[in-house]
Amino acid sequence: MKDVAVWGFSWVPPFAQGLVRDLRVLWALEEAGLPYETRGIDIAERQSEDYRRKHPLGVVPVLECDGGTMIESGAIVYAIAEQCEALMPRDRRTDTLAWMFAALNTVEPPLWNLFVIDHLHEGEAWATLRRPGAVDAAKARLAALSAWLEHRDYLLGRFTAADILMATVLRFVRDTGLVAEFLPVDRYLKRCEARPAFQAALRSQGAEYMRNAPVAA
Amino acid sequence: MKDVAVWGFSWVPPFAQGLVRDLRVLWALEEAGLPYETRGIDIAERQSEDYRRKHPLGVVPVLECDGGTMIESGAIVYAIAEQCEALMPRDRRTDTLAWMFAALNTVEPPLWNLFVIDHLHEGEAWATLRRPGAVDAAKARLAALSAWLEHRDYLLGRFTAADILMATVLRFVRDTGLVAEFLPVDRYLKRCEARPAFQAALRSQGAEYMRNAPVAA
Repeated sequence: MKDVAVWGFSWVPPFAQGLVRDLRVLWALEEAGLPYETRGIDIAERQSEDYRRKHPLGVVPVLECDGGTMIESGAIVYAIAEQCEALMPRDRRTDTLAWMFAALNTVEPPLWNLFVIDHLHEGEAWATLRRPGAVDAAKARLAALSAWLEHRDYLLGRFTAADILMATVLRFVRDTGLVAEFLPVDRYLKRCEARPAFQAALRSQGAEYMRNAPVAA
Repeated sequence: MKDVAVWGFSWVPPFAQGLVRDLRVLWALEEAGLPYETRGIDIAERQSEDYRRKHPLGVVPVLECDGGTMIESGAIVYAIAEQCEALMPRDRRTDTLAWMFAALNTVEPPLWNLFVIDHLHEGEAWATLRRPGAVDAAKARLAALSAWLEHRDYLLGRFTAADILMATVLRFVRDTGLVAEFLPVDRYLKRCEARPAFQAALRSQGAEYMRNAPVAA
């Protein structure tokens, strides 16, 4: 991969900073030691005809390289992992992809649901009524994940691309205190977040927001 | 793949029949011409220690073959597709996986959300209050998908594994009339559902429910 550019949002409010899905791609690139540039689309422009030429559904991230375009964080991270033994051992491709889908299709839905309630619809009547049930659903999934992680440092034992997706999913509920209730999950997330590549990715994403921060009134 | 067995639920109520995610795997196996057997776990037993030895998070489907176990519908369908040119052209693996993730991580969340409101929490106060906003979110995603499908028979032009995931996702809102509002999506879904392999998979899943249907009072 040459001349890599990763599209995220040019700026998001503090509650969403460090959670937008381009972070997954930046983290994978950092783990793989691949250089990249960040690009920011104004969040209000994501459904524009121009941006939908990059991602037909108008979401981030998009990765541009070698004159081509790749979409969807899961697929981009997998493509990077295919070129990098540190992200996916050649003999564990199926297991790695299984846990990548588990992160995005089985664990993300109940956790994202809680993020939507707490941050996108905070204080609305339905959100207040729904929250206790949503918390229960999130806890049930975290409990199962916790049992799996009890004797493992990472999902497959060693670090893989699946951990990039799972850790970024767990961060959706960072403000709720829920992860701390499950010690193996809490330790796992801290272990992932302590990786230098994660920290570097977070700085890259944050730098884009700094450059484009709205001027204070 | 030899001696393939696919785990789904032994029985679900009519509103969920034809929507459980093992259907994706059965459909892929039918397209690939691979023989399989179906297995049913009682939905109440899915978090049992015994079943969690198959899927650590206690969800379906699980595929057993050659003495091994595979989890997550997306990953299982991809593994089948890797062995079958009819499901994934060798030179379009990245595009196929991108649209597989788009189906499960970008289109499924707003559509599944509506299914949860209409079928798992019907009549609850929060669900009634939330529904209009959830409909808007689903429509926004369907509109973007509709634009993409306007001049395409399938997501990548020709049929691939990504269509299996996208079509099963669209079916989550089959009772709402929403898909019919977007003609290219409506035609696309009907085109997918008309495939003999889809019909055969639906019969397989239904046969399992027939065998295990509760005796009428």
